[in-house]
Amino acid sequence: MDLQAVAPDLAKYRDDIVLGDLWKRPHLSPRDRGIVTVSALIARDQTIELRHYMEMALDNGVKPSEISEIITHLAFYSGSGNAMDAVAVAAEVFKARGITAAALQAGANPLPLNEASEAERARRNDDMFGAVAPGLLKYTTDVLFRDLWLRPGLAPRDRSLVTVSALIASGQVAQITYHLNRAMDNGLTHAEAGEILAHLAFYAGWPKAFSALPVVKDVLAKRADK
Amino acid sequence: MDLQAVAPDLAKYRDDIVLGDLWKRPHLSPRDRGIVTVSALIARDQTIELRHYMEMALDNGVKPSEISEIITHLAFYSGSGNAMDAVAVAAEVFKARGITAAALQAGANPLPLNEASEAERARRNDDMFGAVAPGLLKYTTDVLFRDLWLRPGLAPRDRSLVTVSALIASGQVAQITYHLNRAMDNGLTHAEAGEILAHLAFYAGWPKAFSALPVVKDVLAKRADK
Amino acid sequence: MDLQAVAPDLAKYRDDIVLGDLWKRPHLSPRDRGIVTVSALIARDQTIELRHYMEMALDNGVKPSEISEIITHLAFYSGSGNAMDAVAVAAEVFKARGITAAALQAGANPLPLNEASEAERARRNDDMFGAVAPGLLKYTTDVLFRDLWLRPGLAPRDRSLVTVSALIASGQVAQITYHLNRAMDNGLTHAEAGEILAHLAFYAGWPKAFSALPVVKDVLAKRADK
Repeated sequence: MDLQAVAPDLAKYRDDIVLGDLWKRPHLSPRDRGIVTVSALIARDQTIELRHYMEMALDNGVKPSEISEIITHLAFYSGSGNAMDAVAVAAEVFKARGITAAALQAGANPLPLNEASEAERARRNDDMFGAVAPGLLKYTTDVLFRDLWLRPGLAPRDRSLVTVSALIASGQVAQITYHLNRAMDNGLTHAEAGEILAHLAFYAGWPKAFSALPVVKDVLAKRADK
Repeated sequence: MDLQAVAPDLAKYRDDIVLGDLWKRPHLSPRDRGIVTVSALIARDQTIELRHYMEMALDNGVKPSEISEIITHLAFYSGSGNAMDAVAVAAEVFKARGITAAALQAGANPLPLNEASEAERARRNDDMFGAVAPGLLKYTTDVLFRDLWLRPGLAPRDRSLVTVSALIASGQVAQITYHLNRAMDNGLTHAEAGEILAHLAFYAGWPKAFSALPVVKDVLAKRADK
Repeated sequence: MDLQAVAPDLAKYRDDIVLGDLWKRPHLSPRDRGIVTVSALIARDQTIELRHYMEMALDNGVKPSEISEIITHLAFYSGSGNAMDAVAVAAEVFKARGITAAALQAGANPLPLNEASEAERARRNDDMFGAVAPGLLKYTTDVLFRDLWLRPGLAPRDRSLVTVSALIASGQVAQITYHLNRAMDNGLTHAEAGEILAHLAFYAGWPKAFSALPVVKDVLAKRADK
């Protein structure tokens, strides 16, 4: 009703273009769009919209345990305050749907780690930044790459999708190259990478999508050359 | 009262410098300052301050239909969540002032489009990014440049002012060059461009203004050379 | 309770790693961590978490008058809306603790100004940007460097710590070089600079810390060369 009283055409854009067209495009599944949207809203700390889209994500096949894990992941990639605000929203959604802690159990075993590639990543960081911020690098290795990324609650490809969506939605262009490559190593396709930008233009604003665009182009071009 | 109990000098800065000096500078009209401030607050999703400044914008000559259109515009340039949060604020303001949907009617005819320049813009984007994010480019053409920008509810110069203000206030430096040039093509003056930075320093913080400063300088210098 | 119902492992990360390890690292004092965290939360406008960490900062030795001054400072470095939202939080915290306006009195005399270095800073800015945004430069000199930075309510080193933390936490990389140098001129150590990044990774997200990392490295390297 507010929308009709204030910006009636915005309702039309939402119904005709966002829900009626964008969400139906085949380049990204409704489940993926749910993950992308929820990740973007958490990264941008927009809790009012988040409730609606968290419901929609659950309706589109994202599991409660995956919602839980997206929040845990973004505590590290968007900041703990963003995660805590998302926890409050999820608590209401889960309660209304009768989702209990038992539904959040994921497998107990960590995913396998590629020791060689992780050691190489850590070594490169240490060479470059070890003398500057040793604490940051230690936590990056111990908490992020040897713990968080190995948690079984999200498939690696989905975890990458969450990360890339959060980076684009919050304008963190400098980290897109590493994480988009990782996402594509984990199975994200060229077409999906491009469609994430179309999707996020509506939810994070056009400038965020266009700031990411040349970086995404560059990643795709370098991978095609190989 | 909170202000007196917590940071009394902040009240003095606001009264003496922001309201008592900045808003009275002749380089940007009070109506323009209203548009700049409301756009910045929507872009930054700061709904508490927004209510006050939306009232002030209306008092300074911004029409309710223009407030409505600013929100619709920023749904695309700041993200749909920001627009929805602004809708809730505007609904209260409009209701308190007895502003009804009838007052939001703008002309029905779209503004004229410069077909040649729009075709050139689209072609350049397609050449550069058509293979990367075709969906994003399609929506950019169909929804933004052949629809949103032609809506008669805001003069093109004001629509540009909204866009540039939102870009500066949210630190989206990479898009300023295109949109500041467009703003000046639409009538924004050199002095107004500079004064937007002074104004936004107070509302979006000094770092946002100083990050935009070299880009604005560059745009002004290149236009002076022509 | 929400946390247990939604993301139980997030509680473990917070207790074991953030509170149990990070906050106990000797590289940055608990008082400094309080200043860094409060500054980051104000810069990111995260008022829910802010209340808790403002309490913690007071418990760790940050004075009420310093909290007040951090808010006043960030009105200029993060934007007035962020400061106003922090004022509302501080008003509740101060009231609950019986902190009155009398406790906020700092010394009345402004800190001494290095006239030569300030004149040089202003001259450099005027040369570069005087023709672009004269109003912005005037306020930068009169309100920021000849007033705000001379206020006795925060030691210059702490004021720099607030500024650098806010810049990193909001992704304003372009201004870090100037302000980190100023912070180190004011007494911030190499080890503290690095540890701020480790600390802020948790509160502002890893991408913010890693975006700042090469800039911090560059500042430290150039100072070491002297």
